[in-house]
Amino acid sequence: MAKYNPVTDAIIKELQTIIGEKYVLTDADKMEKYSHDEVTDPKYVKMPEVVLLPSSAQEIAQVIKLANREHIPIVPRGAGTGLASGAVPFKGGIVLSLERMDKILEIDTENMFMTVEPGATTENVQQAAREKGFLYAGDPCSGDSSFIGGNVATNAGGNKAIKYGTTRQQVNGVELVTAEGDIVELGGKTKKDASGYNLTQLVVGSEGTLGVVTKAILKLVPLPKGVIDLLAIFPDLPSAIGIVSKLMAAGITPTSVEFMDNAAIKSCEKFLNEKLPHSDNGFYIIIQVEGDNEDLLDDQAVIIDEMCTENGALSVLVADPAKIWKARKVFAEADRALSLIFSMEDLVVPMDKIPSAIERINALGQKYGVAIHCAGHAADGNIHANLLKEQLSDEKWNELLPALQQELYTMVYEMGGKLSGEHGIGYKRVNLLEQFSSPIELKMMRAIKKALDPNLIMNPGKVFNVE
Amino acid sequence: MAKYNPVTDAIIKELQTIIGEKYVLTDADKMEKYSHDEVTDPKYVKMPEVVLLPSSAQEIAQVIKLANREHIPIVPRGAGTGLASGAVPFKGGIVLSLERMDKILEIDTENMFMTVEPGATTENVQQAAREKGFLYAGDPCSGDSSFIGGNVATNAGGNKAIKYGTTRQQVNGVELVTAEGDIVELGGKTKKDASGYNLTQLVVGSEGTLGVVTKAILKLVPLPKGVIDLLAIFPDLPSAIGIVSKLMAAGITPTSVEFMDNAAIKSCEKFLNEKLPHSDNGFYIIIQVEGDNEDLLDDQAVIIDEMCTENGALSVLVADPAKIWKARKVFAEADRALSLIFSMEDLVVPMDKIPSAIERINALGQKYGVAIHCAGHAADGNIHANLLKEQLSDEKWNELLPALQQELYTMVYEMGGKLSGEHGIGYKRVNLLEQFSSPIELKMMRAIKKALDPNLIMNPGKVFNVE
Repeated sequence: MAKYNPVTDAIIKELQTIIGEKYVLTDADKMEKYSHDEVTDPKYVKMPEVVLLPSSAQEIAQVIKLANREHIPIVPRGAGTGLASGAVPFKGGIVLSLERMDKILEIDTENMFMTVEPGATTENVQQAAREKGFLYAGDPCSGDSSFIGGNVATNAGGNKAIKYGTTRQQVNGVELVTAEGDIVELGGKTKKDASGYNLTQLVVGSEGTLGVVTKAILKLVPLPKGVIDLLAIFPDLPSAIGIVSKLMAAGITPTSVEFMDNAAIKSCEKFLNEKLPHSDNGFYIIIQVEGDNEDLLDDQAVIIDEMCTENGALSVLVADPAKIWKARKVFAEADRALSLIFSMEDLVVPMDKIPSAIERINALGQKYGVAIHCAGHAADGNIHANLLKEQLSDEKWNELLPALQQELYTMVYEMGGKLSGEHGIGYKRVNLLEQFSSPIELKMMRAIKKALDPNLIMNPGKVFNVE
Repeated sequence: MAKYNPVTDAIIKELQTIIGEKYVLTDADKMEKYSHDEVTDPKYVKMPEVVLLPSSAQEIAQVIKLANREHIPIVPRGAGTGLASGAVPFKGGIVLSLERMDKILEIDTENMFMTVEPGATTENVQQAAREKGFLYAGDPCSGDSSFIGGNVATNAGGNKAIKYGTTRQQVNGVELVTAEGDIVELGGKTKKDASGYNLTQLVVGSEGTLGVVTKAILKLVPLPKGVIDLLAIFPDLPSAIGIVSKLMAAGITPTSVEFMDNAAIKSCEKFLNEKLPHSDNGFYIIIQVEGDNEDLLDDQAVIIDEMCTENGALSVLVADPAKIWKARKVFAEADRALSLIFSMEDLVVPMDKIPSAIERINALGQKYGVAIHCAGHAADGNIHANLLKEQLSDEKWNELLPALQQELYTMVYEMGGKLSGEHGIGYKRVNLLEQFSSPIELKMMRAIKKALDPNLIMNPGKVFNVE
């Protein structure tokens, strides 16, 4: 195991010179919020030795050079909305919060790219694009607060991935401060590139283990002229999930196909204190379609309505989008209100495996006596299964959870699925990744990490272990 | 410089045992076609020591293990349609031709993926998808003969990139025989993945320097129901190229926007021995739009027609697609017929820089007294500029070409462009890549190469130099 040195008073002084005294936090009070992300289990909390709020790539480069020299961990951090403890400094060291680097630097309408700093919220990025008549298609559920830099780090997915891809597909270039403290521009604004290895795509999804993204060049697409949201409510899981492949086979390319099982609906209804339709026994499928032609869009809505009804829907509503999406988006918060400690799984399976995966998840919940609420992105196979601790004792929970996860991911990998669709591995899933990934793939990832970060200072202990 | 060992008789025997005697070629006659790609300059020709035609990943893994042990170069090869000498064994050693591994292994209509072997031609891949009602959207001009494995190796672009992206965007997973001779599956059939570094995207475009792709999992999209091809003929370059950004700004998302300058049209006309419209003084823009709704598609065609006419088009024809695309696709062959030796540049610039880039290219041609024919992918900024040697002496050519390229790429990089949009760096462009790339980026690429191929046996001397 790599050993790291502590952050001494002399180092704090040096950091103050680089960043400015005001932006070097050492008070426990001020650092508390940087000691965790949205994972509420106390075992995923760890206080930083120091928190820095840099304002430029140049400052970050100096900090990283210092960290290499002194052998101190650097943990880059976005808004702290992560769900895998990827931004928590478990090995101690410096937390580098990107919150001051929050500018939308450019919207290049002619080339259809925007350039942003990592600390801009996803919502601000979307809004800035919209004001110029474009869509930034990345759309994680936490978009109102998450930083775009965090989206890039975890390859955030979200609600529109089925049509537009995940964050990865939106990123055409980055400015990176490397793990050795050099500043480099990767990719750019060309629509094609066959000029060497694609390092941009290696950086996207590497969860801060290869450097710090200080700018991102994001793709824009023309803003669709019309949007329709439909809420189809089914009496059971098979008919709800069964509609997804039927829609796809019919050549409909929705922007979103979200689902919520009945337990998830009930939990969200309680949290919002607001009646949701058919919450007694319904299973939701939320379908969003976009288009430039109103008639065609209406035609699609009619076809979807008919197909859902034919598949047994209790009701198909042209949804009040704000209300329905709010319910979908509070899923994690609502479950947290029910059970402060819960494990939010983020598994992803090939699309055709969703019905059997959810069925098996429910069976596992019954077997282990753990309440499981499922919601997620039905059309891309990404299922969020919240395993609730509720009244279980710590001891029981710590015994049940790993056993349940073992069975769960054995099934997921047998189906050709993966551990994480969009939340990332972070710290929480390191052991599972190491267990379920191919040893060759792990060996390649470790070799790359060591090649690009020889002192292993960037976000150590995340994604996989390496020595 | 890494030194490599020769392929001895004993090694040939061992290779025969692995692959089968029949599939180990050592006769100069039989090996000749593996000594070059479509670059006709004799300095880009080099005879292999041995050519292998393996039939499985397992055989390839054994060969690579042997090559590591003996320190012999391995050069993977597709159809030999490359334009950067990426598959020519300049450091000697083994050429590994994937031609026998040509199967379409699966078309998974439910998950919308197909799995293919690397030796399938792009056309066969497209055709197999079409037969099941899907589009495989990769579409390089050489698609009738190029292998899909070569497309993956160079991140081939082609004619539909503006709508669907390049080969990179089509590849969701690969089976790779690593540079150390291990077989690993990367990616897969999930639509999202945040489970560690994206090694699939690192392999795509790495030109055989990190291993051998033995299977590719490719995305399918629903086959559009209608297609319209338009040929707009303009009296000069500015009005021709000028239409592109106007179309994009109007919210039209064509599948293709190709252009040919007048010299390119004349060269193709001569080669095809077939009258092309307005070949005396025209500049072509070929526009393809696709859609599921016939009326909307017709509406789009009318709008495009009007916009082109307004921009000064001499004529807008609903093109005979076969004829027009044939002219566009023989561009390289036609120029080769005029001048056996020519340099096909593959520069790419941000979209809004195309008009000034082409203007400057023409000015460079005049300055150096070199005929330059331009054609390419107008909507994605990828310009093929053929620099023709014609009657120039070898000496003069070898003096002029590097000087012209220096000026050309200084301009391209100033514009935020890149050396290669889709042909790759191969052997031909190594010096230029090393000169024009950031030293930090090169350092990162070299570090990754050494980490994944410690004995430097995979396709040495390609993309960049490394020791």
